[in-house]
Amino acid sequence: MLIGAVEAGGTKFVCGIGNEKGEVLDRVSFPTEQPEKTLAQVIDYFKDKPIEALGIGSFGPIDIDRASPTYGSVTTTPKPGWANYPVLPELRKAIGVPIGWDTDVNAAALGEATWGAARGLDSCMYYTIGTGVGVGVFAEGKLVHGMVHPEGGHVLTRRHPEDTYGGKCPYHGDCLEGMAAGPAIEARWGVKGHELAADHPAWEMEAFYIGQAISSAVLLLSPKRIILGGGVMHQMHLFPLVREQVRNNLKGYVVAASLESGIDEYIVPPGLGDNAGLCGSIALGLQALREAR
Amino acid sequence: MLIGAVEAGGTKFVCGIGNEKGEVLDRVSFPTEQPEKTLAQVIDYFKDKPIEALGIGSFGPIDIDRASPTYGSVTTTPKPGWANYPVLPELRKAIGVPIGWDTDVNAAALGEATWGAARGLDSCMYYTIGTGVGVGVFAEGKLVHGMVHPEGGHVLTRRHPEDTYGGKCPYHGDCLEGMAAGPAIEARWGVKGHELAADHPAWEMEAFYIGQAISSAVLLLSPKRIILGGGVMHQMHLFPLVREQVRNNLKGYVVAASLESGIDEYIVPPGLGDNAGLCGSIALGLQALREAR
Ligand SMILES: Nc1ncnc2c1ncn2[C@@H]1O[C@H](COP(=O)(O)OP(=O)(O)O)[C@@H](O)[C@H]1O
Ligand SMILES: Nc1ncnc2c1ncn2[C@@H]1O[C@H](COP(=O)(O)OP(=O)(O)O)[C@@H](O)[C@H]1O
Ligand SMILES: [Zn+2]
Ligand SMILES: [Zn+2]
Repeated sequence: MLIGAVEAGGTKFVCGIGNEKGEVLDRVSFPTEQPEKTLAQVIDYFKDKPIEALGIGSFGPIDIDRASPTYGSVTTTPKPGWANYPVLPELRKAIGVPIGWDTDVNAAALGEATWGAARGLDSCMYYTIGTGVGVGVFAEGKLVHGMVHPEGGHVLTRRHPEDTYGGKCPYHGDCLEGMAAGPAIEARWGVKGHELAADHPAWEMEAFYIGQAISSAVLLLSPKRIILGGGVMHQMHLFPLVREQVRNNLKGYVVAASLESGIDEYIVPPGLGDNAGLCGSIALGLQALREAR
Repeated sequence: MLIGAVEAGGTKFVCGIGNEKGEVLDRVSFPTEQPEKTLAQVIDYFKDKPIEALGIGSFGPIDIDRASPTYGSVTTTPKPGWANYPVLPELRKAIGVPIGWDTDVNAAALGEATWGAARGLDSCMYYTIGTGVGVGVFAEGKLVHGMVHPEGGHVLTRRHPEDTYGGKCPYHGDCLEGMAAGPAIEARWGVKGHELAADHPAWEMEAFYIGQAISSAVLLLSPKRIILGGGVMHQMHLFPLVREQVRNNLKGYVVAASLESGIDEYIVPPGLGDNAGLCGSIALGLQALREAR
């Protein structure tokens, strides 16, 4: 069975074909331009492919409320041409299979829960720490949507006592994204993250912010696993630092093996590696197919 | 149809009988003593009552993982006699109907989503701000359990710039509960909350902490309604202050009518008033009955 997958990013679109085992069989990538042009390329890619369903994990914010008249649109993005653009309705006109639609991070969370680092668990959270910070939430076996959709990258943070940087979020200044996304690291230290040595104080500060957000998420949602992806998390030495912060913050209040001896298997990198996005979209497509039956 | 309900609190137990409309038909209350004695009173109350199911919303932390060998126990409470006590197994021995079991705040969230302030919505959060701070989470039509259960009362907070109080949580010091529960108000200002005038600076500070926690919860979970109960929230003038803090924190980033003109209907008191706890337990009982069928 073939499932189509679209990883709709603000910089590039990745289209691919996978199967029900989450195997990626084909992939192409092109830069994100005006929506008409980009969607024409998507439609062209899938035109001759015998897919039974399609999944789209999209950059946002997007409308994922099925009862909304603008369901399937990108909403308030500053990206030229994309604000209020009806992505899903346009694709539906051209592609006659069930289509799943969700945020890129929710897609990644579902993919990880289906085939990756949270396989078999009925809850997990997926954080991407990259150009921005995004959070996907999978709880009680379902992706969480709610009123709009999770935007956990913008939670408030307590400042690191030695941090004098003001924060980069255009809305909140020193929210999590404003303090911990790649561009904040670059603005604070004057060089890109991958140029900073592993023993540079930047990383302890980075772990402070990420660990703080995760601690509050553990308290609020009690996910069974937390997956940290995105460019910044390529710095693998961040994982032990983040785990230590989480333990320091929780101070033994939440009693769970996953927060003690099991913490190395609790806060982990994506199990699907570079396929996390596409696999997530395949999982969305499979979910849409199940619902359509 | 009659459903039994138990509101199992650390100070008192409330037992009652309700129906499928969430109407409370009878109630009794007794102080929480040693578990054997207290559960004997519970069993005695329900002995002759023709209930078809029972729901228990319990103080915690408790084990709500159905796959766990200690499912149905209170876990690490300092309350004498109750640590690791198998509440649900003991009641099951004596009461032969389906029994629903969850945290008191999850029960309250379910009750509010069934008959109260979040009626008809598939997501809400229920905060109690009382002797402690507890949070129940209902998302995508289900109560959230996860690894242990939500403990959102202990999320980290950013300190109010004029607050010199150290915080009352024995684990974290200045977490949400440590800064905003009733005992923190009393310790900070030297008098109990109900003795402070409505224009006392205590309330702006209180709203600062509550609003901060809610802002992060809106970002992380995007609930469709947020219900604030517990003794401290009897101060109704806190509601507009909390709403203002939430709007100030979010700074228009999440675009939703519920955060603009609709915020008075978004952050609200419990719709079930003093019956919130019992109604929640009735809803848990009904849920257990549906699952048993
Ligand atoms: N190895 C690395 N170490 C530290 N930071 C990195 C690394 N690779 C990428 N980044 C940072 O991550 C950001 C890009 O994130 P990425 O997840 O790759 O893309 P995006 O978030 O745009 O999809 C940039 O700010 C970049 O500096
Ligand atoms: N009207 C009120 N105004 C302010 N604080 C109150 C009020 N009523 C109770 N409190 C405070 O709330 C706490 C008790 O919370 P409550 O929800 O009544 O019980 P519990 O949390 O123990 O179940 C106490 O710290 C008390 O001082
Ligand atoms: Zn922000
Ligand atoms: Zn605490």
